[in-house]
Amino acid sequence: MFRATTFGESHGGAVGVVVDGCPAGLELSEADVQKELDRRRPGQAEVTTARAEEDRVEILSGVFEGRTLGTPIAMVVWNKDADPSKYEAIRNTPRPSHADFTYQEKFGRRDWRGGGRASGRETVGRVAAGAVAKRLLSTRGIEVLGHTVEVHGVRVERDRIDIDGIRRAWQDEVRCADPEAAGRMKEEILRFKKEGDSVGGIVEVVALGVPPGLGEPVFDKLDADLAGAVMSVGAVKGVEIGAGFGVAGRLGSENNDPFIIKDGEIRTATNNSGGIQGGISNGMPIVLRAAVKPTPSILKPQGSVDLERMEETEIRIEGRHDPCIVPRIVPVLEAMVALVLADHALRGGFIGPARL
Amino acid sequence: MFRATTFGESHGGAVGVVVDGCPAGLELSEADVQKELDRRRPGQAEVTTARAEEDRVEILSGVFEGRTLGTPIAMVVWNKDADPSKYEAIRNTPRPSHADFTYQEKFGRRDWRGGGRASGRETVGRVAAGAVAKRLLSTRGIEVLGHTVEVHGVRVERDRIDIDGIRRAWQDEVRCADPEAAGRMKEEILRFKKEGDSVGGIVEVVALGVPPGLGEPVFDKLDADLAGAVMSVGAVKGVEIGAGFGVAGRLGSENNDPFIIKDGEIRTATNNSGGIQGGISNGMPIVLRAAVKPTPSILKPQGSVDLERMEETEIRIEGRHDPCIVPRIVPVLEAMVALVLADHALRGGFIGPARL
Amino acid sequence: MFRATTFGESHGGAVGVVVDGCPAGLELSEADVQKELDRRRPGQAEVTTARAEEDRVEILSGVFEGRTLGTPIAMVVWNKDADPSKYEAIRNTPRPSHADFTYQEKFGRRDWRGGGRASGRETVGRVAAGAVAKRLLSTRGIEVLGHTVEVHGVRVERDRIDIDGIRRAWQDEVRCADPEAAGRMKEEILRFKKEGDSVGGIVEVVALGVPPGLGEPVFDKLDADLAGAVMSVGAVKGVEIGAGFGVAGRLGSENNDPFIIKDGEIRTATNNSGGIQGGISNGMPIVLRAAVKPTPSILKPQGSVDLERMEETEIRIEGRHDPCIVPRIVPVLEAMVALVLADHALRGGFIGPARL
Amino acid sequence: MFRATTFGESHGGAVGVVVDGCPAGLELSEADVQKELDRRRPGQAEVTTARAEEDRVEILSGVFEGRTLGTPIAMVVWNKDADPSKYEAIRNTPRPSHADFTYQEKFGRRDWRGGGRASGRETVGRVAAGAVAKRLLSTRGIEVLGHTVEVHGVRVERDRIDIDGIRRAWQDEVRCADPEAAGRMKEEILRFKKEGDSVGGIVEVVALGVPPGLGEPVFDKLDADLAGAVMSVGAVKGVEIGAGFGVAGRLGSENNDPFIIKDGEIRTATNNSGGIQGGISNGMPIVLRAAVKPTPSILKPQGSVDLERMEETEIRIEGRHDPCIVPRIVPVLEAMVALVLADHALRGGFIGPARL
Repeated sequence: MFRATTFGESHGGAVGVVVDGCPAGLELSEADVQKELDRRRPGQAEVTTARAEEDRVEILSGVFEGRTLGTPIAMVVWNKDADPSKYEAIRNTPRPSHADFTYQEKFGRRDWRGGGRASGRETVGRVAAGAVAKRLLSTRGIEVLGHTVEVHGVRVERDRIDIDGIRRAWQDEVRCADPEAAGRMKEEILRFKKEGDSVGGIVEVVALGVPPGLGEPVFDKLDADLAGAVMSVGAVKGVEIGAGFGVAGRLGSENNDPFIIKDGEIRTATNNSGGIQGGISNGMPIVLRAAVKPTPSILKPQGSVDLERMEETEIRIEGRHDPCIVPRIVPVLEAMVALVLADHALRGGFIGPARL
Repeated sequence: MFRATTFGESHGGAVGVVVDGCPAGLELSEADVQKELDRRRPGQAEVTTARAEEDRVEILSGVFEGRTLGTPIAMVVWNKDADPSKYEAIRNTPRPSHADFTYQEKFGRRDWRGGGRASGRETVGRVAAGAVAKRLLSTRGIEVLGHTVEVHGVRVERDRIDIDGIRRAWQDEVRCADPEAAGRMKEEILRFKKEGDSVGGIVEVVALGVPPGLGEPVFDKLDADLAGAVMSVGAVKGVEIGAGFGVAGRLGSENNDPFIIKDGEIRTATNNSGGIQGGISNGMPIVLRAAVKPTPSILKPQGSVDLERMEETEIRIEGRHDPCIVPRIVPVLEAMVALVLADHALRGGFIGPARL
Repeated sequence: MFRATTFGESHGGAVGVVVDGCPAGLELSEADVQKELDRRRPGQAEVTTARAEEDRVEILSGVFEGRTLGTPIAMVVWNKDADPSKYEAIRNTPRPSHADFTYQEKFGRRDWRGGGRASGRETVGRVAAGAVAKRLLSTRGIEVLGHTVEVHGVRVERDRIDIDGIRRAWQDEVRCADPEAAGRMKEEILRFKKEGDSVGGIVEVVALGVPPGLGEPVFDKLDADLAGAVMSVGAVKGVEIGAGFGVAGRLGSENNDPFIIKDGEIRTATNNSGGIQGGISNGMPIVLRAAVKPTPSILKPQGSVDLERMEETEIRIEGRHDPCIVPRIVPVLEAMVALVLADHALRGGFIGPARL
Repeated sequence: MFRATTFGESHGGAVGVVVDGCPAGLELSEADVQKELDRRRPGQAEVTTARAEEDRVEILSGVFEGRTLGTPIAMVVWNKDADPSKYEAIRNTPRPSHADFTYQEKFGRRDWRGGGRASGRETVGRVAAGAVAKRLLSTRGIEVLGHTVEVHGVRVERDRIDIDGIRRAWQDEVRCADPEAAGRMKEEILRFKKEGDSVGGIVEVVALGVPPGLGEPVFDKLDADLAGAVMSVGAVKGVEIGAGFGVAGRLGSENNDPFIIKDGEIRTATNNSGGIQGGISNGMPIVLRAAVKPTPSILKPQGSVDLERMEETEIRIEGRHDPCIVPRIVPVLEAMVALVLADHALRGGFIGPARL
């Protein structure tokens, strides 16, 4: 019921999104959306790409006198600092582990400038939509928080982070709530940036204040929708909820979450379920993690093929790239989680549907 | 375009599925579906539950003179060996890490007999639908193979398994392609069965013969749909594609899949992408893994709450349960992967749409 | 959110439906559904077909202890009095204005026995689903009433019918609320039945008690969804809402519905809008009419083609057919309207969503 | 599979649309879309409103080097000649037979300037999307043609119009293919314009070149989708296909379309089915008609209510309005038909799906 339809290529006229299904009466301004876009904007820190987009959002519809109308909210961000000259070289030479080859195979043509539609720039629309979802959720006390928990093998220590730390993670360059790990993560990124290489990592997203009862049985389970939404982000190669892959080494007696009564409410003593049982939220924090691959754009020479001549060749990617996409993907994953939760909050009758 | 609508509670009249969108002209008999159902059927091995369902499928529509008509295929399996008496005790006492509590919260009532709709028995419908999807895919040379790669910390050795081994994995009780690991997995399961406990594990599903070009950009990416479908299976807490969570510790130069030309076709030298780049298949095998939690039904006493009296209590689950759901979930995960691939093969014009 | 997935061919094993999205807690028995099925059942009156199906419904899932669970409700009706022998003749000779030819073209094959999937028998599933929708709506005081307003040029007099008459229309053989017109309609049907011909007519459906605010702007307008649902019934060739095609001859000053205040509520003095403005219900009765074509199965010889020899030929249809489908289509159209209203009542938050 | 998501309020920043599902490789320029928008643009003839919008379209994405990419095509038209001052008066006084009241009821607020989202201006997005659909269909020889067949009781004579006349209808101010009727229609419109009133009419849309086999059985029938799409246009109160409401007065022997062989293809001798049988196209021209109500904005005083004081009052609408919306709705209905046909052509595998 809360749908985001994004559009736009990296080096086309604009990127943007149409959000349909937001109830009427939500206070919403361009500044609210801008705040989230600024969090994913490149060119902010030593550890990200040098491409400097202003990424100024314009709301074209759906808001009147400072509040949503219940009608589609169209938002657009113009592409400005787009320099396609660097991409001429890859026109016929697909970059490894990018979408160049698969787009070419499927569509017979592609906008080869900066990855076109498959560029990370497409996530501008997602983050803008997510900004609306987050505001909507916040009216019911639901908070969505992302933070970096691993970069190239460097992991946070769980006992050094708490919810307040996660809330402050945004102030850190790598978005890590554990200051000690954060420093080592940054070193790791800069070390391989220097080598023209890139590193991967893991982002965790926590949703607080989610009431029990969101999600549907079998079809449209909350965890299934979250997994699909998170996996739809370009660089993500894995997603896990609660104990996640850790369950493989556990016993039922270790992994089950016993019920308790706390402040008059039924809760669980542990949260290996990550807040979801049988596809439906149980009132505990929702916890998921996404595996983010190392940016495929690296400066080192790589094996590719020349599509015209059908022969193997070597490719050297130029341009400005993030040595580690993890810090910038945090707000994107928050957005995806917020979009799914907003949809289920509407479907479940917890918000709206037509007006706040 | 290939949709499966399942129905049925564990101890109700029947479970089943309506498959819509299968092209006309596919040879299909009840025996074809039965074969797959038999693979998930309980009561077959020492390592599974003792509940003995015959699980005989009846095709009610959509097939005429041995071939599909292009109309909805309804399939039903009657519930026979349903013994609800053991469940009276849990009517007001939700079982930890089951869906009892969340269903009760959401719907205000539930069929408490055997988990009702949230029972693993619901997957009968999925496997029946998956059987149709698999047959459909096989007409284009696509093969979907599942096997167990980890049980309670015991892992397969990759150099002891190959595709033929994976094809034969079905003959093993734990569905493991590495005979040595298989033996230790079985021991692990029986050890904790004796203790009234349960163990988790990891299942891998491989799809061979998938052509490049399946999947859509941004919305309905192939990997996103796979992740959502796999995560919608009850016991799954994580899903990863290709290198999966392993990417977190890698460099771009290690993780990227260089292009090569092999037998005149563009392929990649490695397959860390798991056959999908930018949400679209690239012609390499699709590889995904799912983390399967230990069966939450264990015989040991656990903490719960009495929903009527709103006080903490202890619960002892009786009945017949799988000490490890991993072997029986293999055909379910194959079915989910097959359903997604069939859908995308139809959408992508690789099969059908109206007739073979 | 309230979805009905029907299945079944006229002479296959069974016809039926899976209803998904019905909130938990609705009292529902097989008798409730049977009552509606009995209203569409053939073999009840002189003016309908002689095919005598018992049409006994079985609820397979979704109901527990007399109330819905919030899970899919599967219902099945076995095909019993199916006599395909009469249809051998049409295997290669499509019947004019039936779906024989288009199914053959699209799917390359079809179940030629009794029209297969395109048979009016498919509506059994719709009526069963509609029975659930009607019960759901009735919990909020919404009533859906169909009646015949025209048969082969014979029309009701509007000043001879009122809501009570429409409620009683069911007792009339042609489902007409105007007793005088009813008699002439019946004569008309029997006259042409004798000649081996058939006649068309118009059915009106009225929904009372619909609150303002159901329907969505632009996408999923209430009138658009109603039109689509009604036109999806086999014999329907036109649908109009409120003044309908009458608007073509009117002035704005005649057609506009002025607002008034009645019993403290805003209503309109007239109802040319048929209860819907801008795609959203306005609190007035919803009024729509559907044009129902004469049954295409007539005993007179007709021009067709032999599909194998690709030559023109003459066809004479045998078997048992309704000389006028209008009376039996009334409950089907009620069902379609009820399904759309139930869906919008759920989407609009007027019912449920998860429980009553 | 071919989806149009429109956005925009009449007096907001912009109106527009995102088209998803268009295959790659279609030649498309802003001029192609502009041509269609110019056909619905106000201020072109004596019979339409004086509001003078330039309606210049901008394509923001999805097109590269003059051809579509297979990615979403976003198109935007800025609102320029928007004069909201005239609408202050209706802020609390809903206009009869407009959506003012229903939007206010549903959402609790609305953009009252010029009807906001419910304005006919919303159709700019539909026409832009329809322009893409039309171009796509034209690559397969499918042509969609609309024309006016009735205005306030003045009807075309069928023997004075043919396909070429319909193609030229666009040059006529009222879009009528019968020159004699056209003159009288125009007189009728101007007569009631002078009186501050408005008139209704009927538009016919014909689709030529549609192959047999488009449409799905039961769900997503072609006629059902067409009816829903056409009824979703603001002023439409009825839709009929082929013989339409005329079937009510006919016999089966008159209404059935006998099959013939023509030029080696199976066709029907008559086309009372309007090109669709059993929800699937049969290769004959698709013919549908829509009843268009008189513009509800009339200058005469009308009964309304003051929403704040909850008392009856009189309203006098000012501003610039079409005395008859029929001529300007023709391209909108063409667009709706083209969108449905494009969707079904893609689903049916007749076009694409990924590339031309």
